[in-house]
Parts: sequence; structure tokens; C-alpha cells
Amino acid sequence: MSEGSEKTNEGPVPKAVVSRLSLYLRELQHLIRAGSQTTSSNQLGSLLGFTDAQVRKDLAYFGHFGYPGIGYKCPELIQAIRKILGTDQTWNVAMVGTGNLGHALLGYKGFRSQNFEIVAAFDIDPNVVGQTIQDVPVFHLDDLPKIVSERHVKLGMIMVPSPVAQQVADQLVAAGIEGIVNFAPVTLALPPEVSLVGVDLAIELEQLCFNVANRKAKAAE
Amino acid sequence: MSEGSEKTNEGPVPKAVVSRLSLYLRELQHLIRAGSQTTSSNQLGSLLGFTDAQVRKDLAYFGHFGYPGIGYKCPELIQAIRKILGTDQTWNVAMVGTGNLGHALLGYKGFRSQNFEIVAAFDIDPNVVGQTIQDVPVFHLDDLPKIVSERHVKLGMIMVPSPVAQQVADQLVAAGIEGIVNFAPVTLALPPEVSLVGVDLAIELEQLCFNVANRKAKAAE
Repeated sequence: MSEGSEKTNEGPVPKAVVSRLSLYLRELQHLIRAGSQTTSSNQLGSLLGFTDAQVRKDLAYFGHFGYPGIGYKCPELIQAIRKILGTDQTWNVAMVGTGNLGHALLGYKGFRSQNFEIVAAFDIDPNVVGQTIQDVPVFHLDDLPKIVSERHVKLGMIMVPSPVAQQVADQLVAAGIEGIVNFAPVTLALPPEVSLVGVDLAIELEQLCFNVANRKAKAAE
Repeated sequence: MSEGSEKTNEGPVPKAVVSRLSLYLRELQHLIRAGSQTTSSNQLGSLLGFTDAQVRKDLAYFGHFGYPGIGYKCPELIQAIRKILGTDQTWNVAMVGTGNLGHALLGYKGFRSQNFEIVAAFDIDPNVVGQTIQDVPVFHLDDLPKIVSERHVKLGMIMVPSPVAQQVADQLVAAGIEGIVNFAPVTLALPPEVSLVGVDLAIELEQLCFNVANRKAKAAE
């Protein structure tokens, strides 16, 4: 089927579709860096291990993006996906907790290249407050409401130890944050108008483990 | 329906079920820390925002774990899930790349508490090779095959810059690694017998962004 002729899907967008949009975006960015200006659902799918039908179906939730006989124009599709995800504009992010992992992520270049700008970090340690880490100023947690408002911060990342994560989440919500990425291995309770994504790095290892262990069990059958 | 009477599911286990196992495991660990020795599919589900039917259906892929009138015994279910995931034993992990993020993750306590032990790190920078970071010795990348074999390393984490990630993956595979977690924002080609999980931290922010942007769009309708 040609790229242009898929029907647009109706109804709410499944979460899995939205996460695949991020993957398509990454591949399109790699393709452009490799010198390709156009691609196909077939190429995009095979780069990621999906069928071409999957790619077309996912994109059809959001409109018509292909051209018959050409496929997708990479820069145009990148712009369209960014618009869908909301990352066609820059989002200001605050990080709470500048321990080991927080410190490292302040220098993580992958955020800025996807239009996320960490504009402020927060801590309560007097040795860190007032310092600058990777060009990001560190403020005292008490200044959260003021800085969030002044610097138009919309998203927060929680990098504090588990026992204080809920309290920090409450402070972020009170300061007017609209979405939170939680790296603390604990489930947070948030009001329904605030979005939440949890990141548990050990989960990735567990999933890998399951695959490795199951592959072995299969081979032994 | 009582916890004990669900039918066991047949067929291959969907990926989403396996990732929910990790979430159940975390909640069970929190429950025990909070002093609960038993739980129900209802409680476990509501802590995570799933229905009780979802919890029972997921667990039914792997056997019968509940007791009528009691529910689940937390320590027993933890042990059962660890056995399913393969994390009832310790897995030795090698990290390649000790830059900013790699350095931080060497000190990330969440790995060890889930039975992942980073036993060796690798780099090519002469200023780092021979050092110890967070009690983990750093070796030259050339020593990878020797150390992987000597220290029974099964899993590898790639924390190097994107342009060299595939080359490092090939070296890990050649050294006998069975599974790879890739933090470099690039898609890797691996032989089918090696498992792969990719972690892109900006994707979490993009997903959050989509939720925040869509919530606003809905509210404005």
C-alpha cells in the first residue's frame, strides 16, 4: 500500500503508539545525519524491527504524511512528529536532587537535542546550593515556587532518594509543574491534572534478563 | 474471583506482561518494607493503576500464586517473580564507557538491590583505565574478552558515544555477552542469540510532553 493512502485512525491514541513515535523520530534523525532526505514505512520499520503496516497504522492516528511514489520526506515527518509530541517548542525542565545520578543527567546531551532545557536544579545541601553544575544553577528547594514561575518551568525530574520523593512531588505540583519524570524507585500519588512518567533503570535489566533466561530455557528444550 | 482460581494462560508471554512483572515486584518490595506480608490483586492493581483482573491475568501466565481467603503472600510472590525474571540469582554486568552517565550509574544503588552486580567497567581513556569508580575496577577495552570470561559476565551496558556504540556491541558479542542494555541513542544490529534493550532517557520526557500537551488541548476544547 502506498504511504499516502492509509486511512486515519479514530479514537484515543494508545500509549504504545506514542512511544513508537519517539523511536521513529530517532531513526529519522539518524537517516538525515546519514544523508537520506526521504524514507519509506518499509525502511523505517525494518530499522526498528516493525512491519511497514505497523509504521503506517501508527502514523495514521495523526494524519497523512506520505507521498505516493516518494514515501516520507524525513525533515517534514520529523517536524510533524515533534508537533504531535509537543517538542516543536522548547520545554523548560527543573531537576530536583543533584546526587550522583542527577549530577550526571545535568550533563546528558540527549535532552537538549530533543528540545528539553534543564534551566534549574534544586537541592538542600549547602555545599551544592549556589553552585553551577554543567552550566545549570543549583537553587535551594525553598526557592522552587519562585524559580519555576520566573523561568517558566513546566516539567520536573525527581532524582532524590525514595523516602522524600513524594514530598518533593507535592512541592513540584504546588509550584505549578505540569509533568514529572520520577527516577526514584517508588510509586507517586499525583493529582489527575499532573502527568507522570516513572523511570526505573533496573527494570530494563530485568527485562533483558527475562529474555536471556527464556532464550536459554527454549534452547535447552 | 478468588486469587487462586484463575486459569493459567497459554502461549508466549507478551512483552508488556513481562514489564508489568517488574512493577509488581517493586510494589511487593514496598509493601514488605511497609510491614505487609500479604496483598490482593485488588490492592496490587490499585497501587499501580491497573484492574485486579489485569493483575490476575498477568500472573496466570506463569502459574497459580494466590491463596483463597488470603490473597498473595508477598515474600513468596516476590520469590516467584524473581524466578520468572531470572533475578533469583545474581547477574554479573559489565559497563563499557565511564563518561558522565556511566560514572553515575556505577554508583546507582537500584541495580544491586535487584541482583545486578556491575563487576567491571571498560574504557580506553588512559586517565581512567586502572582506576576504581564506586568500587568497580576500570579495565582497558582490549581486556574485555579476558575479564568477561574470568568474571562470568553475562550482561553488558553500553554507555559510549553513539558513533562507537555498534563497534562496542560487536566486541561485547564476540566476548560472549548474552544481553545488552544500550544507552547510546542509536539502533544496534545484533545476532539473534543476543538480547537487546535500548534506553533513551529523552523518550521518557517526550512521552510526558505528549501527555501534558494533550491534556491541555483537551481542556481547551
